[in-house]
Parts: sequence; structure tokens; C-alpha cells
Amino acid sequence: MPVGTLGSVKGVPQDTLEELGAQIILGNTYHLYLRPGHELVRSMGGLHKFMSWERAMLTDSGGFQVFSLSGLRKINENGVNFRSHLDGSSHLFTPERSIEIQIAMGADIIMAFDECTEHPAGHGRTRDSMEMTLRWARRCKDHFEAHKQEVPWYSAKGPERQQALFGIVQGGMYADLRRESAQRTVEIGFPGYAIGGLSVGESREKTREMIAATLEVLPEDKPRYVMGVGYPEEITQYAALGVDMMDCVLPTRAARHGLLFTSEGRLNIKNTRFVQDQGPPDPACKCKVCARYSRAYLRHLFVAGEPLAGVLNTIHNLAYYLDTMRAVRHAINLGDPSGIQSGSVSMA
Amino acid sequence: MPVGTLGSVKGVPQDTLEELGAQIILGNTYHLYLRPGHELVRSMGGLHKFMSWERAMLTDSGGFQVFSLSGLRKINENGVNFRSHLDGSSHLFTPERSIEIQIAMGADIIMAFDECTEHPAGHGRTRDSMEMTLRWARRCKDHFEAHKQEVPWYSAKGPERQQALFGIVQGGMYADLRRESAQRTVEIGFPGYAIGGLSVGESREKTREMIAATLEVLPEDKPRYVMGVGYPEEITQYAALGVDMMDCVLPTRAARHGLLFTSEGRLNIKNTRFVQDQGPPDPACKCKVCARYSRAYLRHLFVAGEPLAGVLNTIHNLAYYLDTMRAVRHAINLGDPSGIQSGSVSMA
Repeated sequence: MPVGTLGSVKGVPQDTLEELGAQIILGNTYHLYLRPGHELVRSMGGLHKFMSWERAMLTDSGGFQVFSLSGLRKINENGVNFRSHLDGSSHLFTPERSIEIQIAMGADIIMAFDECTEHPAGHGRTRDSMEMTLRWARRCKDHFEAHKQEVPWYSAKGPERQQALFGIVQGGMYADLRRESAQRTVEIGFPGYAIGGLSVGESREKTREMIAATLEVLPEDKPRYVMGVGYPEEITQYAALGVDMMDCVLPTRAARHGLLFTSEGRLNIKNTRFVQDQGPPDPACKCKVCARYSRAYLRHLFVAGEPLAGVLNTIHNLAYYLDTMRAVRHAINLGDPSGIQSGSVSMA
Repeated sequence: MPVGTLGSVKGVPQDTLEELGAQIILGNTYHLYLRPGHELVRSMGGLHKFMSWERAMLTDSGGFQVFSLSGLRKINENGVNFRSHLDGSSHLFTPERSIEIQIAMGADIIMAFDECTEHPAGHGRTRDSMEMTLRWARRCKDHFEAHKQEVPWYSAKGPERQQALFGIVQGGMYADLRRESAQRTVEIGFPGYAIGGLSVGESREKTREMIAATLEVLPEDKPRYVMGVGYPEEITQYAALGVDMMDCVLPTRAARHGLLFTSEGRLNIKNTRFVQDQGPPDPACKCKVCARYSRAYLRHLFVAGEPLAGVLNTIHNLAYYLDTMRAVRHAINLGDPSGIQSGSVSMA
């Protein structure tokens, strides 16, 4: 899922996202709550209508962002008090408040408000945090069930269509806690499950180990979503383990810093070796950037600070990631997840 | 002509410019000379190939930009010594050097190197400046005739296709000097003529008066180009006077500052009155921005500093300007230049 933090995948018009084949994009509740505000989004008919995006959307709960505001937030059983990174104003997110905001914005998939356990953390502290996330998951589900008909498009789309609230597994870097968290989250019961609290500084091997332990418990017939990963080789690896959904700012953020993902590896487009390189960013890629522009031109745009640099780099990186996921689906359809490779080269 | 200073119309991919119907875009020789450098552009096969733009291009001479570097430049009969605004390095533009650079970049239309007379300036000083521009025009033409076969695409496109060097009329705010400059520029002989040195702080009535005086002398069967104008109502007015070509950074620069040109007048999109405005930027506009996005969404993007704001605002403003020129051509085809109006509303 490409990340559209503030109701826009940075620099990329929605029709271009459609052309790229993006089926679902992610919005960040913390950021959208601050700007433009969920009440405005509700009054505009919800996020789909506000940003003119008819395909699927997912919003996170805001949990990860407010926990990242170290020094600006205070956590207790009720929820999280935090100060806006924009103007220092005080706000409170509780499980109920997060769900209220996410109902107002009306994404197709919304997420339970969880505590992303800090890393490193001992077993006892991680268990306490996991227990609170489980209590919060219950509160989220209760609030959602009581208020789900308040989604702005409720009457327009019919009662059979509704938002899906996913639960989130925590448990830090402990396989036993991951399994227990998964088991007890499944007992609460959600139409899909996320694995949170990863990619927080641990080794990649540890990430893989925690995902594998959690997947042992999560039901195969429900979507399983690893939040906030990752590099192309990671997403193919996790898909091979059985992960169905992932999101990451990497393809878009790296693009704005001039880092391109290609079938030949990562390219730092500002490198002087590209100054006269007439080749496309990725010879194996079929995207409209690779079909039209040279590395030399993209390097010039980036070095000169032209806004088109971010636009074109982002379009290519999203094409590369979405091609990677198409290759994953193709391998799965062939019944051979071990054949999954990243990038468009595997489409050849 | 949309302005693509550094080989890119800021934030807008080339395929979008094609969809908008842009037939010709402008590049700035001063900026392209500094970054990426004309020798690099030449080695890439010229500016068309470098930026992947097959339609027409025009480069200015660099004169206007170097004269704008007050404090950083020194003018004498030979040319202009200037320091780069990027790194302070010293450079010399002469008429011959400007033409050499423009041949290397290979735009379809290139411009003589002129002195843009400062404003205000007395009659004597304006005449001296005009005389130097005429001597420089001769030098430009001589250098171009001697070197025009050095354009990078010379062998690829056949000898019958070549660059067109346009002369530039100066003469400040004096109608007699404007007419004399035009007469003597025509005597040197060019396939097209520009009117330079306007929009430098004078009243709009003075601009119109200088254009009208110059057009009395310039041949009707050659393109007549007013440089660096203007607002939509200006470009329709000048077209009605007989002007064939104009360029301006206004639609693109204003867009990046949140100013939209519409059939209902200018909109400052960050205005709070648009916060819940579900209407399109311009109800009379058929562009892809007006077809899809609301003023409320564009306001949010702009206020939140999202890069998509500049992209979408620029696409709309270019659509508005290009629609204005389509309306101009339509009125001319009907034989009724007095019916020329600005913007898409006149297309209805």
C-alpha cells in the first residue's frame, strides 16, 4: 500500500496512482486529524470523496505516530496525551477517540489503537504493554460496533458495505508474547489482523522471526498485514511467509531523496556516474518514467532541485513496488511462493 | 508558451503537458547553461531529446536573466560579465556565446542576445542601448549563419529543417525608438521578431502603447512575439493587437503560490472561504484538475504544504492559459479578434 499521509501520495495525482494499478492506499490518522481535521473530512463525505479516490483506503490508528512523539506525549490506561508537532496544542487519543476519528474519515479498513512497545524492552514490560493493547483492542471493537453506522457514506453505500476494523498484534521481540497476543486478539475477533511493533530498530532476522511466530497463530483465511515494511526483498520474503498486506513510506520517501529501486539494485540518482547516462532508470521496468526519461535527465532534475524530480522518482518507485507485488501474486497463483522475487525483472 | 526554466515545467510531467495541448515550451539559456550545462545537453542530443519533448521549444538568449543579476554583472560592447547566482563563479555572455549555447541546446526557435534597457531610462540612454542591441543582433545573425549546422540534430533531421533565430526589438518606453528599433531589426532580417524590454515596471497602458507602436512596423507575415507577458486579460488584448506568441512564468509561478486563474476571476486557494467548498476550481474549465478535485481539497493540499498542490494548481493554470489561447485562435479563425476573451468561459 502506497502511503498517502495527508490525503495525497506526495506529488502523485490520483489518476497516475490508478494507472500504476494501486488498489489501496493508506492515510495517517494522526496527520489527517491535525490537518485538515476529521470533522472537515466527514463534512466532505469522507476521505474517499474528499481526495477523489474511489479505490480502497486504510487508515492507521494514530498510535504509532503519537508514540513517536517522544517528549511530547504521555501514556496511561485511558489513552495518550500528546502535543501537536505543528503548533504544540494538546490532544488526547483514546481507543474510542481513534475509532471515532477513523469512522468520520471513512476508510474501508481502519485499525485498532495499540501501543507500539518501545525497543528494546524487557519481557515483563513487553507483556504489560501487550496486555494494555489487548484491553484497548476490546474497547476499539466495542466503540466500533456501537458507532459503525456513523461512517459518512453509510446511507449512500448500503448497510451491507461497512468499514472493517483490524486488530493489531504486539508482543515486542518475544515469540511467546507474539503468539499469545495473536491468540488473544483472534479471540476478540476481527475481520483482519495486523502485526505491529516491528521495524523499530531490531535486526531483519528478528523481524522475520516475529512475523513467522505470529503467523503460526493468525487464521489463514483472514488478511494478515505487517505494518511499516519494507525494502523490496523484505516484502517478497514476508509475502512468501504468508503475509497479505504491507505498507511503507520507503518507496515514496526514498524517491524524494533520489533513491530509486530497480531490477539492477538501488540507484542514487544524484551520483555523477549518471550525468551522461542515456539509459532508463530501470531497463526492465515498463513504467511511464522508464519508458520516457533517462537517468541523465532524472539526475539533472534532482540536482537542480526541480519539483518534477520527486514526482517522477516517486512514480517509478511505486511502479517497482507494485510490480513486485504483482510478481508475488503471480507466483502465488502458480502455487510457487518460493519463486517470488522483487521487482519487475521477475515479470519477464 | 509555458516556461520550463531548467528543462522542466515545474512539477508537470511531459505527457501531461502534451495532454494539455502545449505546442511549444520555453527554456532559459542562463539557467540551462549553469545547470546541467549546454555541453552536456549537446552530448545528450539536444534539449528535445534530453527532456523527452518532441514538440517545439524556444530558448531565450540569457540576456534578460543576466541583466537581472544587478550587482553581479558588468556590461560593455563585447557582452556581459556576470557571476552565477548559484556559486558566484564568473562567466561571460557575448552575442556569439549566447548563440553558440543556443545552437548546442538545439531549440527550434532561438533568440538574439539583446540588452534589456533598464526602467526608467532617458531617451538618450535608451537610444544608446537600442543601438548596441542592433549591433549585437547583427553579430548574433552572423554567428548563427556561420554555425547553424552545428545543431546536434542537424544530420538526423535533414538540412531543410533548421533552427530559427528571432530578432528582438528594444527602445524602452519611447514609441519613436520602438519603431526605429523594429525597422532596423527588420532590415537585418529574421524569420520572426520579438518585442523585448517590456513588463519591467511600466504601466499596462504603456506596455500596450509600446506593443502597438512596434507592431506598426513589424511584418505581419512573420511571427511577432511579446516576451514575458502576462495576465490572461493581457494576452488576449495583445493577441487582438496582432501578437502571435507570448511566454510568461505567471501561470506556473502563481500556481505554486496558490493563485488560480479561473473564469470567475483569480482565486487564492488558501483562503478560508474555500475550506468546505466542494466545487471545482473553475466550473467552466474542462481540465483534469477541475474534473476531479474540489477547492476544499486543493486548499488542504496547499495549506498542508503537500507537493501535489503545486502540481495540480500548475496543471489547472496552464489549462486556463492554453484554453485562453485556443479561444483566441478560434476568434481569429472566425475573423473576429474583437471577440477574444480570456479563459475557458469563452469556449462555451
